[in-house]
Formats: sequence, structure tokens, C-alpha cells
Amino acid sequence: MTDIPYKIYLEESEMPSSWYNLRADMKNKPAPLLNPGTGKPMTAEELGGVFCDELVAQELDDTTPYIEIPEEIRSFYKMYRPSPLVRAYCLEEKLQTPAKIYYKFEGNNTSGSHKLNSAIAQAYYAKKQGLKGVTTETGAGQWGTALSMACAYLGLDCRVYMVKISYEQKPFRREVMRTYGASVTPSPSMNTEVGRKILAEHPGTTGSLGCAISEAVEDAVTHEGYRYVLGSVLNQVLLHQSVIGLETKAAMDKYGIKPDIIIGCAGGGSNLGGLISPFMGEKLRGEADYRFIAVEPASCPSFTRGTFAYDFCDTGMICPLAKMYTIGSSYIPAPNHAGGLRFHGMSPVLSQLYHDGFMEAVAVKQTDVFEAAEYFARCEGILPAPESSHAILAAINEAKKCKETGEEKTILFGLTGTGYFDMVAYEKFHDGGMTNYIPTDEEIAAAVAKLPKVAE
Amino acid sequence: MTDIPYKIYLEESEMPSSWYNLRADMKNKPAPLLNPGTGKPMTAEELGGVFCDELVAQELDDTTPYIEIPEEIRSFYKMYRPSPLVRAYCLEEKLQTPAKIYYKFEGNNTSGSHKLNSAIAQAYYAKKQGLKGVTTETGAGQWGTALSMACAYLGLDCRVYMVKISYEQKPFRREVMRTYGASVTPSPSMNTEVGRKILAEHPGTTGSLGCAISEAVEDAVTHEGYRYVLGSVLNQVLLHQSVIGLETKAAMDKYGIKPDIIIGCAGGGSNLGGLISPFMGEKLRGEADYRFIAVEPASCPSFTRGTFAYDFCDTGMICPLAKMYTIGSSYIPAPNHAGGLRFHGMSPVLSQLYHDGFMEAVAVKQTDVFEAAEYFARCEGILPAPESSHAILAAINEAKKCKETGEEKTILFGLTGTGYFDMVAYEKFHDGGMTNYIPTDEEIAAAVAKLPKVAE
Repeated sequence: MTDIPYKIYLEESEMPSSWYNLRADMKNKPAPLLNPGTGKPMTAEELGGVFCDELVAQELDDTTPYIEIPEEIRSFYKMYRPSPLVRAYCLEEKLQTPAKIYYKFEGNNTSGSHKLNSAIAQAYYAKKQGLKGVTTETGAGQWGTALSMACAYLGLDCRVYMVKISYEQKPFRREVMRTYGASVTPSPSMNTEVGRKILAEHPGTTGSLGCAISEAVEDAVTHEGYRYVLGSVLNQVLLHQSVIGLETKAAMDKYGIKPDIIIGCAGGGSNLGGLISPFMGEKLRGEADYRFIAVEPASCPSFTRGTFAYDFCDTGMICPLAKMYTIGSSYIPAPNHAGGLRFHGMSPVLSQLYHDGFMEAVAVKQTDVFEAAEYFARCEGILPAPESSHAILAAINEAKKCKETGEEKTILFGLTGTGYFDMVAYEKFHDGGMTNYIPTDEEIAAAVAKLPKVAE
Repeated sequence: MTDIPYKIYLEESEMPSSWYNLRADMKNKPAPLLNPGTGKPMTAEELGGVFCDELVAQELDDTTPYIEIPEEIRSFYKMYRPSPLVRAYCLEEKLQTPAKIYYKFEGNNTSGSHKLNSAIAQAYYAKKQGLKGVTTETGAGQWGTALSMACAYLGLDCRVYMVKISYEQKPFRREVMRTYGASVTPSPSMNTEVGRKILAEHPGTTGSLGCAISEAVEDAVTHEGYRYVLGSVLNQVLLHQSVIGLETKAAMDKYGIKPDIIIGCAGGGSNLGGLISPFMGEKLRGEADYRFIAVEPASCPSFTRGTFAYDFCDTGMICPLAKMYTIGSSYIPAPNHAGGLRFHGMSPVLSQLYHDGFMEAVAVKQTDVFEAAEYFARCEGILPAPESSHAILAAINEAKKCKETGEEKTILFGLTGTGYFDMVAYEKFHDGGMTNYIPTDEEIAAAVAKLPKVAE
């Protein structure tokens, strides 16, 4: 037995008091959002119609390295943070690997994931601006739940558009959001123009994150006193999620641990971007070196098979354009139970870093992911979310390589959440009914061919 | 802002190394279990047919105050313990009460409750004895999940009889247990003689804990290499659950906090007995005084409307007789969503303490409980289990009294678990379809009249 405890908890006094803005240390900044009408960078004024003011400032700020976390948000964080950094002793023993495995576990809150870190920040700034409420989309339901919790706490109205397939597969998610006073609508819906249009074109669609985003944005801009909030992709979200990485680094520093490999699942990039941020900052400043691995589903492989180009963040093509790795906003991914990873694009920050060679990416198959999830659950006790299990699988694969080579590498991964609301997917896995749909080259090429034309 | 953090976590080195056996400090010991055939106290040999040997020893030991926790169990505890002692700052503020409210939160593990504390202990001793597997019953599903997790970890077979109404209301619970490799059967079932008999007499029954216990015991005693394990009621379970109270007391002592009132929900008594044990020990030894309040559902009011007498622990009348507060083992409680509290009796240890005037009890209505649950969720963030919400309601009521009187009492309650698998009940509450069935005096009298005759 070593001196490293099973779980490292920081003291409240050791919790970060500022978020870290990774963009400040990037030489090649992420490309600005463009106005889809003019092709010009979105101004603060234009963004202010969609997002609340303070968040617009955070979205555009790529020079300030540290941004103070308001006292009210820090108080809220203390209700469920610091989250534990766990040493996976049991997993290591079961794998018989010389690798040392750690995971930052963000699932110990009712939203079931890291999403609450940004939800409370976005709700706080909306409240501060005197708004009535916010609208958003949710895939797996974790973001919607997180936002409902934050809004209930602050007394804000909350309208959630939930990807239809998740709405159907996760009936209880809706009830949790309702417990927190939110309204939940399956998307595409008849509530919005964009929803009606998508339903007319694809009557049987199971929805997608991109489509739900379009509806939520339209709802916000057409109602006085409402703004749209988003749980991933945006710079501001990665900023808020840096609390994950900052806590992780502080906990590791406290025990003199240095990770060799840092792994996270990647849908829009919020968890991965948050987890890696302080470590990536060190790498960018030449102070340390780490291997970073983004893990995405083979059914929606933005990094590994996408193109680095400007694209819409939403299917409805009403949002600003972002430069990112994308398989095309017109591509509707196959139903994949990791609903949180069914997004056609990837955070511009992470896309730029990947493009510049600072990180790697792998795509993994759903059935392999669930096999890893069950393996992990049985030895580490935690029932992981399908999204998080992508990172588990990659971590196990790296630990197995260490077993072959005898290397005692230190592997860190993000365990973003729990799978309590994913039992339909687990059931399908147990019953052998789970499939792996992998898009063909032709499908991706067709969607990429429809990318908006932008003169850069 | 005070110096007390939102969450107090002990260091691993501060975690208890022994369980505390409250019976050692009781002047009036809980009455022994009786053999229903002979009316004589059950011997170790007789109990050994049902329980594994080390657990029989713990069941019968009412003199040893501290029993060491084996190293293997302490390692397992470190995967999800210490659990946080939370200062409910937000709840206090919302209530505008001068009371200081603390709760010990046992829900941050995949079983979703404190049940894991005893599950791993019971599975460990079964494994140590070289058994093949264990059988058990589960009401809300938390105990079954906990046992599945413990068995998966140790490589034991696990057979769970799940109260039919819970099985139907919580389809995903079954899938969680399956993820951990357990087999789950709705009870009453055709697997056992007692199940077939109950089904013949009450064809439409929704089942009960007492009935599921009968089936699990029969399954164990009729299969070589199997023993029965129970998640509540028994002395051994309260012993294992003392880890809750020991951690709580250590955390409070660390910050110089002394509770005035200690509150817990009471079904079979495992959580309440565990939480109060070290505090009650001080009270019994005359070292300190505390008010203890057991909170039970008005639909199944063992303490407040039951009789202190010998009764069967199970509906099938095959288990030993225990002297306890009971509304009669033949009474089948109305469907109440707090499945974990639908037990006709109460732990003999707690029953004796209640009988001797060391604790109080209140019965509360289900709709009030859910109102308290939602109120709590919206300010403290945690979505509580219906069982736990009984304690929340009582704590809120005490805090409101403090507001009236201006007293700055310190209130401690046990938040035993999360409600992620109780969304059908929450949905019913939201839709206004929840009812409060309270047994009539005649119903209870009829069941009590059927109590077994025992010459004491």
C-alpha cells in the first residue's frame, strides 16, 4: 500500500478562485465566430442578442489568463465540489498493469456530470443581468439537468429542448428536470420555425444536438428577457470547466504526481477542454510535456475523420459559424447511446490545438465502450455514463500497453459522469442488441461538401 | 461565513478501524431471536444454517464494544468512503432558521445509499467461509444493488428477490444489478414454496419486504453453498452501519460541533441505528445527552402505532422471531414509494431503545415527504431518495420550530441516499396522483392479533 489515498479531496481553501483561460497561452488563437450572413467576425453586440453580456466578454477574451470566479458561484461549487481525484487501485490490480491510473470523478452531483460547473456560471450571469430565464438544448440530459438545478437555485426560468431520442430513452431525466422546475420539450418540436422545418424534411428523425441548439436559440431570441446558454463547444464553457483541470492539478501537485497521459471523452469538448487546460497551458508554455488523447465515438468521429473548417454549430444553420473539426452540420449521426457525444463538430479551442499537433484523438466502437464500462463498474464500483466510458476504454487500452512494455506510466482520465439514466442502453448491451454504426466515407464527404463557403 | 466548510471529509487515516457495537452499552439488551418451532433462543448452530459463521457470532455478541473492520473491507470502504458530513447552509438560508443543520450524505456511491456498508461486510464473510453465493431480498432496490456490487467485487454469486412493486416501478434497478452480474426475481415468485403459497392466497399482491425475505431465505437454505444476507433489522447490520455514526462523530468532533437533535428515517432501522450508535452510546453511558427522532411513513407505522412483541421478520413465517415494534407480519402495507420503509417491524436494538425511552418517533405522510424532498433538492442540489426524505421533512420541521422560538439548535440528520431510481414516484407527485394511505386501527389490530404466541 502506498501513501496515495484512494481519493484525494482538496480542502475548500485549496479550491481554485479563478478559472484559467487557456486561449491566453495559445500562440495560434482559435478562429473567431463568424456571422453567417456577412462572413465577418461576430461582434460583442451581435453576440449580445443571443448570450448575456458577461458571457460574451468571456467568449471573446483570448488574452486574460485568469478570470476570477464570483463569490456566489464559488459558494455553489462548494455544495458539490471539490470533486475527488481517485486512484484506481482496483482497476490497476484487475488489469495487472504497472501503470498508475487516476480519474477525476465529476459524477457526484444530481446532474450526474461536470456540466454543472458551467451551468451555474451561465445562470449566474443571466441572473445578474436581470434576465427572466434561459433556453438550452440537452443531449444525454446531463446538461439540461445541470441547468435546471442552477436555475432552481437562482430562481430563473429554464426551457430545455431535449434531443428526441434521449427524451424517449431517458424518460426519468425529464422528471428530474421537472423536479427542478424546468420545462422540457422533445426536439425537433413544433415550437419553433426551425423545428417545424426539420420535421417536414426528416419526419422520422430522432433529433440531434445541432437541431436542438437551433430550436433553443430561436426560442431565446424571439422571447423578451431570455438568452440562450450552451453546455459545450464555446470558449466560455471551456473556461468554466477549467475548474476540473485546476482541481486535478492542485490535487496531483499536493502528492507530487505527474501524469504522462491525459485522456478525456470528446463530444463538444467541454470536459476534455476543462480537464486538460492547466496541463496544456504548461505544454504550450514549454514548461512540461504531456500526451493528450481525445476519445470520440466511431459513430460521430469529428476529430479523426472530420475536416478543420468553418461550419454551423447547429443543424438549423442559424447559429454563428465556428472553425472546428467537423463531419458536417448537415450530418445526422446514427442513434448512439452516448447522446452527449453526438455532435458533428468540436470546440474551436480543442480543434486548433489538435490541428497544431498538441493532442491526439482516437475513435472507439460503442460495444467496446460498454464492455469497458461494465468492467470498470465491477471493480471500481462506479456505474459510468456511456460518454465517460469512452475515456475509460482508452485508459484501459493505454494501461494494457504498459503491461506489455512494463512501463510505469501515470494515466489520468476524466470520469465525467454516472450512467444511472442510461440503463436502457445498458439493457440493450446486456441483451446483445447494441450495434455499431460507423458512417461511410461517402456519407461524411457528402456532409462536408455542404459546409458553408467562407473566405478566410 | 463561518469556519465550518460546506462538506467535512475525514482523511483516510481518520476513518474508523472498528465498528461500534451499541449493544455492549445497553443495560437492557435487545431480546434474543427465537426459534419459531421451539420458542427457545436461536443457537449459533441453528443460525449457521441461514447466515455465515462470522456473522452469526456478530449477531449474538452483545458485550464486545468494538469489533475490528477487516483490512479488505476497509479497502473497499475507501472506494466510496468517507462520506461527507454536509452543512446545509442553503437550506438554513431558505428556511431563515437560526438552527444549524447538518446531514451525513451516504448517497455518493452506485448503490445510491448506505446499504453498501453492510453489503460488503456480509459478502466478505461469506467469501471468507468459502461459500458460492448469497441470496437476499430488496425493497427499493438499494440493498440489492449494494449486494450486487459487493459480490461482483469479490466474485460471489448473488440472487436477489425484489419486492414486486419496486421491480415494476424501478425497471432500471434490475439493469444496474445485472450490470453487476446479479440475478433478480420479482417477489412473490414461483421459485419458492413460500412464494407460491403467497401468490395463491393473494394473487394480486404487490409484494412486501417480509415476503421477499421468506423467499430469499428458502432459496439459501435449499441450495448448497449459499447463505442468506439481510440489509436491515439484524444486530449485525446495525453493527456494520455504525461506520456512518462513527465517521459523523469524528467529523463533528474535529470541528467542535455537538448535535442537539439526531434524526433518521426508519424502515428496518439500519441507517438510523448506524447513525445514532456512537451518540446513543454516550447517552447510555451518561456522558452526553441528545434527542433522537425516528421518522417512519404513516402508511407503515411500526414505532408509533405498533406493539412491542415477538413477531416473524418475514411474511412467510419461516424466519426466527424477533422482539420488536411491529404492526404485524401478516399486515401487507399499502404501496408506498418509499419501498425501503415498507417493513412491518423494526430492528430489535432500536425497538428496545425506544421502549426504554431513549428515543422518539414520528410518522409522516408521503405527500408531505415529497414536498420536502423537492424543496430540499432545489436548494441543496441533491435529489433525495423518498426514504431519506422522511428525515429531511422531520429536520425541516424541527428547524421551523427553532425559527419560532429563536433557538440555535444543531440538527443532524441522515441523508441515506439518492432518488435517481425513484422518478416514477416523483412523476406521480408532480402529476398530483400521489395518495396517502394510512392503515385503520382495525387493520393494525387484526394483524397484531395474529402475532405468534410466545411465553417470555
